[in-house]
Parts: sequence; C-alpha cells; structure tokens
Amino acid sequence: MARLVNSSRNFISTLQLQNAYLVHSLRLLGTQAGLSDQKEPSGPTVKTAIPGPRSLQLLKELDAIQNTGAVQFFVDYERSRGNYIADVDGNILLDLYTQIASVPLGYNHPSFENAMKKPENLSAFINRPALGVYPPSDWVHRLKSSLLSVAPPGMTQVQTMACGACSVEHALKTMFMTYQRRVSGGSPPTEEEKETATINQPPGCPPLTILSFKNAFHGRTMGALACTHTKYLQKLYFPQPDWPIATFPRLKYPLEAHEAENKAEERSCLEEIRELIEKFDKRGTPVAGIIVEPIQGEGGDNFASAEFFQSLQDITEETGTGLLMDEVQTGCGVTGKFWAHEHWGLRRPPDLVTFSKKMMTGGFFMTEAFRPQELSILLGFRVFNTWMGDPAKVVLLEELVSVIKEQNLLNNVQTTGEYLISTIKTLQSHFPDLILNARGLGTYCAFDLPTAEARDKLLMALREKGVNIGAGGSCTLRFRPTLIFQKHHVDIFATICESSLKNMK
Amino acid sequence: MARLVNSSRNFISTLQLQNAYLVHSLRLLGTQAGLSDQKEPSGPTVKTAIPGPRSLQLLKELDAIQNTGAVQFFVDYERSRGNYIADVDGNILLDLYTQIASVPLGYNHPSFENAMKKPENLSAFINRPALGVYPPSDWVHRLKSSLLSVAPPGMTQVQTMACGACSVEHALKTMFMTYQRRVSGGSPPTEEEKETATINQPPGCPPLTILSFKNAFHGRTMGALACTHTKYLQKLYFPQPDWPIATFPRLKYPLEAHEAENKAEERSCLEEIRELIEKFDKRGTPVAGIIVEPIQGEGGDNFASAEFFQSLQDITEETGTGLLMDEVQTGCGVTGKFWAHEHWGLRRPPDLVTFSKKMMTGGFFMTEAFRPQELSILLGFRVFNTWMGDPAKVVLLEELVSVIKEQNLLNNVQTTGEYLISTIKTLQSHFPDLILNARGLGTYCAFDLPTAEARDKLLMALREKGVNIGAGGSCTLRFRPTLIFQKHHVDIFATICESSLKNMK
Repeated sequence: MARLVNSSRNFISTLQLQNAYLVHSLRLLGTQAGLSDQKEPSGPTVKTAIPGPRSLQLLKELDAIQNTGAVQFFVDYERSRGNYIADVDGNILLDLYTQIASVPLGYNHPSFENAMKKPENLSAFINRPALGVYPPSDWVHRLKSSLLSVAPPGMTQVQTMACGACSVEHALKTMFMTYQRRVSGGSPPTEEEKETATINQPPGCPPLTILSFKNAFHGRTMGALACTHTKYLQKLYFPQPDWPIATFPRLKYPLEAHEAENKAEERSCLEEIRELIEKFDKRGTPVAGIIVEPIQGEGGDNFASAEFFQSLQDITEETGTGLLMDEVQTGCGVTGKFWAHEHWGLRRPPDLVTFSKKMMTGGFFMTEAFRPQELSILLGFRVFNTWMGDPAKVVLLEELVSVIKEQNLLNNVQTTGEYLISTIKTLQSHFPDLILNARGLGTYCAFDLPTAEARDKLLMALREKGVNIGAGGSCTLRFRPTLIFQKHHVDIFATICESSLKNMK
Repeated sequence: MARLVNSSRNFISTLQLQNAYLVHSLRLLGTQAGLSDQKEPSGPTVKTAIPGPRSLQLLKELDAIQNTGAVQFFVDYERSRGNYIADVDGNILLDLYTQIASVPLGYNHPSFENAMKKPENLSAFINRPALGVYPPSDWVHRLKSSLLSVAPPGMTQVQTMACGACSVEHALKTMFMTYQRRVSGGSPPTEEEKETATINQPPGCPPLTILSFKNAFHGRTMGALACTHTKYLQKLYFPQPDWPIATFPRLKYPLEAHEAENKAEERSCLEEIRELIEKFDKRGTPVAGIIVEPIQGEGGDNFASAEFFQSLQDITEETGTGLLMDEVQTGCGVTGKFWAHEHWGLRRPPDLVTFSKKMMTGGFFMTEAFRPQELSILLGFRVFNTWMGDPAKVVLLEELVSVIKEQNLLNNVQTTGEYLISTIKTLQSHFPDLILNARGLGTYCAFDLPTAEARDKLLMALREKGVNIGAGGSCTLRFRPTLIFQKHHVDIFATICESSLKNMK
C-alpha cells in the first residue's frame, strides 16, 4: 500500500495548496509520451457542498422550465480541463464518468479547438446538410478518414445518425429488412403488403421480433426501449411489444475461482436463447435479430466470455437471425481495443455495430450482406431521415481519430486499465466486505458494493472529496474515464476511495 | 403576365452572363430592408446535367460504403450562398427545398459565421454535455434567449432533443405518462407494475395507443414510425403496433368553391376520430394522445380549417387524451407566424409541440400539465438520454432567433408568401390542366400535378433549369424555401416554371 500512502500525502498537500485560482495557474501534467499537450489541474479542489449554492440557484431557474430530476450539478465547461470537470461553485472534480461515458479526450482538448479554427471546417458547422440527399463534396473523404479508418475488422459499410438511440432504431430496421429478404428471397412486395404497410397491419408490417437481454440498455425511443430492460422507470406506462428477452450471463467473481459455474451459467443462457428463438418462431412472431452489448453497461457492467459471444454468433448463423453488437458505450477504444467485440475472437464480424457517445456522431457499421438491397428504386428512403447525422460532429471525430492514432491512446488505455483494475483489486483486498466483484477491460472497469445504499453512499462520499463516478445496475460503481486517463489519476482516485471506505466501515 | 415576361428576360440574360466564376463576383442583392447583408448570386447557373460528372463520380465512391438511393447531387456548401445551392459541377440552383425544409437563413449566413467566431461560444462546440445531468452554467440563459423567447403562446416548458424523430418519441412518452397519471390519480406504481415494466408486459407496459392520421409523417424511429402513414417503403416489413389511424380531411380547391363539401368532409373526419377513440377504449387499448401536423407536409401539403383543429382540441379535452402538434416542418416562421398552429385560433395551447429542422435543435414544448410529475425520485430519467440535445445547436438558434426578430423575417415570409401563392395561381390560370390545387400559408406553399409522372417530370425540368424544389404526397410539388426568400426569387421560379410547363403541354 506504499503507493496509496504516497498518493494520500500528495492528495492532502494538493488540497491545502489549491484555491479558487487553481485553474488559472495550470501546470503541465501528463507524464506519458504524447499526452503532454493536455493541461489540467494537479488534483481535485472541493470548496462547497456539491451541488453548491450557485448550482442550486441555477437548478431552481432551470426547474421552472423543464424537469430537472436527473441534474447533478451545473458545470463551468470553459474552466474544465482534461480529466477534470469544474462546477459553477469553484469545485474541480476528477471526472471518471465524463458525461455518461461520452467525452473521449477530456474537456477543452486543444485538437478540437484547432479543428474549430480551420477555415476549411467552418462550412460543416454552419451549413447542416440533409446528408442522405445532398451530401457535401468532402463527405466521402471525411467518412474514410474518420469512421472507415476505425471500422471493425471485416465491416465495410457505415451509416451516420444523430445519436445512439436513432442508430439502434435504424439498425433494428436493417435487421428486419435483411431477415425478410432472406425469407422472401428478395421478391418484390405484393400489393397487399404495400397497402397494409402504411396502416400498421400484416403482411406489410409482419409481427417480427428482436431478441434482447435482461439488464440490457439500448436507448429510450420506442424500438430501442423495447430492447432495454434495466430500470422500470425507463419503460413504466409505455406500451411495449412482446419480444423475447433472454438471460444475460451473471458471472461470479473472481472468475478463476468460478470457472465451472460460470461455464454452466453461460451454457444455460445459450440454451434459453435457442429455446426463445424456436418458441417465437413457432408462434408466428419470428426473431429477425439479436441485439447485445459486448459488455452490459447501464445494466451493471456485466461481462460474458469470448466463448459465449462466439456461441451466440453461431446461433444467429444457424437460425438465420441478425447479430447487432451495440457498442454505443463500449466502443471508441475504452476497452483497449477500438471495439470491445474485438476481444471476443469472433470467426466473422457481427452483422451490425452501433456507435455514439465518445464517437461524437451516432451511426452504425454493417457488413455488405446487411446493406439494404431490395426494392431498389426508393431504397434510399428505407433507412433515412432529414439530417442522417452531422458533418460538424464528423469533423471532430476526424480530429479524435487522428489523436488516438498519433498518441497511441489504445496503448494508454491498456496500460492505465491494467493499473486501474489492479488498484481496485488492492482496494478490494483491504475492504473485502465493501468492494465486490472487481472487473474490467481496459479502463471500462467496475466494482459492486453489497447494497444500493452502500453504493450510493460511496458515490456521494467520493464526490464530496472531488471524484465524480457513475452508478450502474443495482449496486455497481462504474469507471468511464477519458482515453487520456492515466496512472496518476488512478492514484488520486485510490487515495480518495480508500479514505471514503474507511469512513464507511 | 408582364412580370413573368420581364423576369424571363432577366433570366435569359443571367444565363448568358454567368460563368464558372460567378460566385466569386457576387453582388449584393436583397432589396427588402434588413436582408441586404445576404450576398448571393443574381440567378441560377446550369452548366451540366444534374447530377453532373463530378457528382456521379462521388456517388460511385459513396455507394461503395453506404446505400445512396436517395442522393440527388453532391453540394459545394462553401460556394452556396443564401437561397442558392452550388453543386460540385459548377451548377448553381435556386433552392426552394433547402435540405428538406431545414435551412432557416440560407447557406453561409454571416450571423452563423459570427457566432462561430465568438470566444464565449467555443466551449459549446467542443464540450458536448450530458444536458440532463451536467448542464452548462449558461444553459438556462441560452434556453430563455432562444427557445423560450419564441415559445408558442401559453407554453412554458421546453425540452431539447437531438432530432425530430427523437422529439416525437419522447413527446409520445410524455403523453402516455400524463394519460396514466390522469387514470391512476398519480398513485405510485404497484410492485406488479414495476416488475412487468422491465419485461415489456402489462400492467407495467399497458397497451395504450396513439391516434394518428392517414398521410401523416412524424419520423422513422419505431414510435414515430407507428404514427407515420405516407409511403409504404417507410414501414414495409417492420413490425408496427395496431394503433388507431384516422382520415385527415382532403379539402377540395379552390376552397371558396367547395365550402359545403369541405365542411362535410371535416365533420366526417371528426366523427371518425370520436368513433376510433371509443372503439379503442372499449377494446382495452385506450387512446392516450393524438399526434397531428398543423399542415401535413410529407403527405402532400394537406390543410384543414381552423375549425377542424378547434374541434379536434375539443375532442381531446372531452376524452382526456393529449394533443401533440408536430411542428417539425411547419414551425420556425414558415407560415408567417412562428408556429403554424397559431393560425388555428385554439382556445388553449396544444399540450405538446415538437420542433426540429429549421430550429437547428430538436425538442418539444409542453404545458405545465404535461410536465412529468409522478414518481418524483427518479423522475428525471423518464424523458432522458445521454445528450438531450446539443448546446452547439442552441448557440446557432440564438443567432437565428435574433436575426428573425431584428430583420422581421415573419413579415418577409408573409409578404413573399402572398406573392408566391398569387404567382402560383397565375401559373395555374395559364396551365389549368397541369397546375392544380394551389395552396399555401406563408411560403409553405404547394400545388399538385395531375399524375406522379407529370409531377416528377416538372421537378426534373425545373432542376435542369436551375430550380431545386421538393416532391410530396402522390403528385405534389412543395415549396420549402428559407426565411429570406423574396419576391425576386419568386419571379425567377415563375419564369423557369412557365417555360418548363410550356414544354410539357
């Protein structure tokens, strides 16, 4: 624990030294090669309760015009830097949650500022095209230098969208289309299908289904929500289709001590998936596709093995269903590979991969086979909307991809991630009654507490000491830091977490 | 027709004078007060077929990575100005469709360029917050100076979203919540409701429905799509809920010659709505809300009378259902009032109003009564997602609202709109077999052709001569120009349309 003690000393001296002018006297940090252009504070500063008085005043004002039930505090984004988020009351927190896992390079990254100042980018910010109808002259080039340059292995097709939920919605539609094409052999629609399609009736709108998993999260629009099964509040009183819901494996930790049990658990889940597909097929509501997160996020950082995903892909192949890997939260390098599913050693690519959050733009990759193909004359309008994404976000993604490559940030995530998980395991060894089930891949890490109350208590204690972290599942704390999160940040977390846990004993 | 002849002469001389360097020798246009800061060409230039060779080359490249079935041509946005869109082959078209009705101030408007250069706006472009959790310090101020300053009369609550479809999805959810609160008296959910909600089953997910209209368009995500009934290709092979679909009035033109028939048509539609609500209520799938466009757009610019909408609101009041006015296409001043429903003289505001497109950001207004209220502890997560909109777009909206007010653009829309509809009627009087059912409000105008083939033929003929216009419904051409569209632009359209129609005779 020498590391923790040293860090603790650093933390206390940091607290003593810092004051309201801290962010004005920034010093260069970032000891790892390539990350040194990121100016940020040397540690957190907490001066008030969080939310502080200014946040509470703004909350009152905002609450007059919209529901604010989820607001945590108001942020001074101009004063936030790198891994540190500054609130409007002068507090500065080490941010391990980063806008629900959506900030890739930290706050105010210089590369984005530079992108904004390039004259050739201006048009993308002030002229928003209808990309599906009137794409800009540089669109192909921008897609190639951003999205396609980081496409999952074997995936050549990409479609941008505005956000994660829209991406899932249109990816689901693409699975329905592909399934129907397989079934019908690509024959043109009948007059009856055309007529019934506009009035929500079969055969034009057949009762196809999507198989999703318990504790899955895929979004809050009606189609994405139908595949989401985390909190009841997300769905309560909304009509939802009767689609198959399978059990996602609940692995026991440490993995090495529960190998047989975990294998049996996964076998049982796979069996249930087969049974559900058969059952829904028999009752005339066939499963067109399966949607799954490579690691469940919102549902509590639930992992399954590579073998589970390989078998899942086998099932989709055998049953002629699609496989949509939802990487909205797991993509963009957070697991140490660009896409989390690359860890699963699949024999062929998934059929579709959705993305958003850290990718700046929503959208999805797909294989050639899943590209819309039938009904050629108006085919472009099957997966379509006014904007179809936003070049302004792709401009930023171009910069992001370039920084990830130049600074080898996947390597940084791997290095920091290994250090983070070993640090959590050290904490777990010191607080075995409080820290449970340490797990993670890259910096996509998490641990559980014995109860939701204990989890919430630790989350608030961390915040009070300057660490902002996320909750997930029923009693999970999840790490969703930036891609420039480093070992010394882990040390700051460890010190503060240790002192918080001591108070909880 | 003196006007048309004069314009025609201007058009021909324009064509003769213009060359590849036209956009480099811009001259100030805009004879109306306040619009003179908008530099644009004096008329269209057509040098190649559209799409031209460069567009076709880019189309081939784009088609290798995504479906391009809806692409019309590739655009040089940097060279586009005001009401004129420049393609990559050196053609410059008068744009009456403006990115599917989504460009408020024309291309490269100086106010947006200025907004980009203000240091205080930079943070909004490079730090995208999770607005529902960590809003920026200036968020309340920005909402007030943009969205709330143009809120529909009587509506005090606003929620931003990323796009039109997401806005509709969450507005539908808000109607379900409000309906259920009315039914249950706001009592907390039962354990059974909580448990069944996460697995898509009643009573947690009750079979509530939304009533929508034939030929309505509300978006392409699963919930919005369930209310959309225009083209079969938008829904074919997608599972859709069995929700009530009512007939939207099909008025006969000219209105003054068909008063009694049109009144009877609307009475019959209102009667059908009442019957559908009763029928769906009786069968245990009650109607929680009605979604309607103030003027159907994609469905073919279908108008109903103010009395129809007043009676529709009466029905929602009597039956305890919500009324969602979808103003994604009709909002932001295009009808001469900021919101189209303001023309209908409703006794009280609609319950919800969705917006997007020209508003730069998606979102919806709602009344206090429709604000999420029950289940207070996690209420913020009922209408929620990661981004909840984008401050970068609200920065642009602030500029837009300021320009609309300073330059009195609603007045410009009224003036230009009156001139446009009278010009269409003049054309109709000269080509009574080709131009049918001239109609419009502000510059939100349209006319029909006798067949889809004739409509498409005219659309292509106009494009070949430098006018880009939109199709809608089965045989409609629709005008969706910018808010800075002026009389001299109407003249250019009229001249080109007249010569195109002569060739069709």
